[in-house]
Amino acid sequence: MATQGQVITCKAAVAWEPNKPLVIEDVQVAPPQGGEVRVKILFTALCHTDAYTWGGKDPEGLFPCILGHEAAGIVESVGEGVTEVKPGDHVIPCYQAECGECKFCKSGKTNLCGKVRGATGVGVMMSDRKSRFSINGKPIYHFMGTSTFSQYTVVHDVSVAKIDPKAPLDKVCLLGCGVPTGLGAVWNTAKVEPGSTVAIFGLGTVGLAVAEGAKTAGASRVIGIDIDSKKFDRAKNFGVTEFVNPKDHAKPIQQVIVDLTDGGVDYSFECIGNVSVMRAALECCHKGWGTSVIVGVAASGQEISTRPFQLVTGRVWKGTAFGGFKSRSQVPWLVDKYMKKEIKVDEYVTHTLTLADINKAFDLMHEGGCLRCVLATDA
Amino acid sequence: MATQGQVITCKAAVAWEPNKPLVIEDVQVAPPQGGEVRVKILFTALCHTDAYTWGGKDPEGLFPCILGHEAAGIVESVGEGVTEVKPGDHVIPCYQAECGECKFCKSGKTNLCGKVRGATGVGVMMSDRKSRFSINGKPIYHFMGTSTFSQYTVVHDVSVAKIDPKAPLDKVCLLGCGVPTGLGAVWNTAKVEPGSTVAIFGLGTVGLAVAEGAKTAGASRVIGIDIDSKKFDRAKNFGVTEFVNPKDHAKPIQQVIVDLTDGGVDYSFECIGNVSVMRAALECCHKGWGTSVIVGVAASGQEISTRPFQLVTGRVWKGTAFGGFKSRSQVPWLVDKYMKKEIKVDEYVTHTLTLADINKAFDLMHEGGCLRCVLATDA
Ligand SMILES: NC(=O)c1ccc[n+]([C@@H]2O[C@H](COP(=O)([O-])OP(=O)(O)OC[C@H]3O[C@@H](n4cnc5c(N)ncnc54)[C@H](O)[C@@H]3O)[C@@H](O)[C@H]2O)c1
Ligand SMILES: NC(=O)c1ccc[n+]([C@@H]2O[C@H](COP(=O)([O-])OP(=O)(O)OC[C@H]3O[C@@H](n4cnc5c(N)ncnc54)[C@H](O)[C@@H]3O)[C@@H](O)[C@H]2O)c1
Ligand SMILES: [Zn+2]
Ligand SMILES: [Zn+2]
Ligand SMILES: [Zn+2]
Ligand SMILES: [Zn+2]
Repeated sequence: MATQGQVITCKAAVAWEPNKPLVIEDVQVAPPQGGEVRVKILFTALCHTDAYTWGGKDPEGLFPCILGHEAAGIVESVGEGVTEVKPGDHVIPCYQAECGECKFCKSGKTNLCGKVRGATGVGVMMSDRKSRFSINGKPIYHFMGTSTFSQYTVVHDVSVAKIDPKAPLDKVCLLGCGVPTGLGAVWNTAKVEPGSTVAIFGLGTVGLAVAEGAKTAGASRVIGIDIDSKKFDRAKNFGVTEFVNPKDHAKPIQQVIVDLTDGGVDYSFECIGNVSVMRAALECCHKGWGTSVIVGVAASGQEISTRPFQLVTGRVWKGTAFGGFKSRSQVPWLVDKYMKKEIKVDEYVTHTLTLADINKAFDLMHEGGCLRCVLATDA
Repeated sequence: MATQGQVITCKAAVAWEPNKPLVIEDVQVAPPQGGEVRVKILFTALCHTDAYTWGGKDPEGLFPCILGHEAAGIVESVGEGVTEVKPGDHVIPCYQAECGECKFCKSGKTNLCGKVRGATGVGVMMSDRKSRFSINGKPIYHFMGTSTFSQYTVVHDVSVAKIDPKAPLDKVCLLGCGVPTGLGAVWNTAKVEPGSTVAIFGLGTVGLAVAEGAKTAGASRVIGIDIDSKKFDRAKNFGVTEFVNPKDHAKPIQQVIVDLTDGGVDYSFECIGNVSVMRAALECCHKGWGTSVIVGVAASGQEISTRPFQLVTGRVWKGTAFGGFKSRSQVPWLVDKYMKKEIKVDEYVTHTLTLADINKAFDLMHEGGCLRCVLATDA
């Protein structure tokens, strides 16, 4: 291909400063170095972590940067030593890397790979600790090791999953973050058993994926809790069997759920990012065994709390990142499950726009009707 | 036996008011009703929960009452329908009941039986919601369903474990609370695997039993943390391999442990009852998999807190009551393990006194050298 080894100039949405509209710029994307992969991004969705950093809420957020981490594309070229993917492969960038070799990958206990985190956490690539993005020589930071709000991006080879080339990229891009997070919270982190009762706080994409995961796992009751009752109708299709709006009750929501379930649920999931809801989610669990999983990301500096007695009497408090899925090995498996119609993906796409409309897409995130907005970057 | 069916008058240590010295009184102990067992207590130890309630720190504590829950004795008589024990059986009263029939017992997930809790929580017996203790007609409340600071007590049949009659009661009385709590926190709640690293906060009886449990489970490093360095020498015999006194460090203790262990321990245990140590115990766990178990009982009203990110990045926060042991089925098994010299018990007994000296025994609990003080009630 003509572009291999060359700097590519393409369109990308640059976040120059927190809270200022993104600007579509001509960005120079350097060729991949050893162990790196340059990907032509075809579709990218928006997730709350993008909005969080863009909003200046992440104290470690670096600007200017190119956000985006829920996407799909095609390998354009690879750097030296890259063996697992080649130009033309269809891929999903993975903000959770998987190297297979570090202490984390080898533990068999977690999906949090440590290999490139030291670089991706500060917006650069491992080999030279520099960015591959620039505008007229001025570097633009990477984000989460993915930076998918760009027509081309460079990622570490441990951060890219090769998928079935028949999979529709405008849909499976969602398998880069929100949907696996919800499914995996149920299947990997909580390990919900058949017959269990489940409470889900927040019925956005992540909460609905939790519902779907719970249904698949054979949960007997799936109680959906949201302050926006408009969410309830749609949630039925994802497996939610009962609805509670905290605004309809004078009692604290944990008490409402405990009363509804003769002592509490077996599993609860916080899919909002609100620390007081995290507490309620723990406290609505059944004494003796109830397990609560924190999925939502809280504003920086905020803390969770509860009485230790809640834990001493048998409740368990956990959390999950990317649903505990090992990215490179399991994202392709999720794509296959989608192709076999065993998991939903299309149903989460409520809006489609182009990269040029990205600021409108950020606005849409605050609208009740929006789950995921997918942007075509090619248009 | 001549006493069967009769009211027995015997000596008991009565807590008339919070924080006032206990008084040895002549107490009338009514015969056991249906489903109840009257036990002649021969030896009782003191545990911090007794001191906690006596000190007025338990908002649900009821006075006057007879405290005590770590003891051993012999069945004197049984009420109607009691089939599992008979007069003459050697027993350990169990503040965690085990009925085998309630939702909790049948769950297979917890040792917290619900059968008699509604009565034992308010100091009475189930059948008539009255106390079996009185002084000249004035009722004295039960405590934790055990009330072992008495020469005779009445317990529910689901709250008594029948043990090997050859076991020395002056030792195995400890298997009524502290030692099983520590062993079980490791074996049942955390399920520590061979090769794991372990941090133990607080090296009293419970912390030392955690150390012993960790050693048996094959832990590679057992780090003992205590603000009293006098605890360290003795702790070596229980399996602690390294010692840290937080007072020797300027850094927060969680950071000290993380630095010592290349990222944190696999398992930590809080055996003090201090909410800020509970936080440290969680935060010194390794990202991705570290599990922290709260064993200590905090002062009422106090809360634990942390940043939710600690859990989202894979740490797990749990607690344990009686180490997760099912009392009636597993206390006899622990006694057998002791008889086979597979677990220590004698080593925790640092003082022996008589019931008449009980106030002195409470004082001893605050002395660094004291683990367990065993009182002979018969003398
Ligand atoms: N742990 C991870 O790996 C991971 C991955 C992706 C997303 N997330 C996080 O998951 C969370 C959910 O993401 P999403 O895309 O589904 O978000 P979303 O905004 O689409 O959904 C949140 C839902 O919560 C509801 N809600 C808000 N406040 C509430 C309250 N007090 N009580 C009940 N419901 C309330 C809203 O009405 C909305 O329906 C976010 O915090 C996101 O950052 C975490
Ligand atoms: N969960 C249960 O089922 C259960 C059962 C029995 C006891 N307990 C609780 O376990 C706890 C421990 O019991 P124990 O009998 O071993 O108590 P203990 O008082 O003998 O031991 C506590 C130890 O902690 C040390 N310590 C105090 N503050 C400290 C700090 N800030 N940092 C480090 N070390 C500190 C003390 O020096 C002491 O050695 C108590 O809270 C008790 O109520 C719980
Ligand atoms: Zn995301
Ligand atoms: Zn790795
Ligand atoms: Zn105790
Ligand atoms: Zn029971």
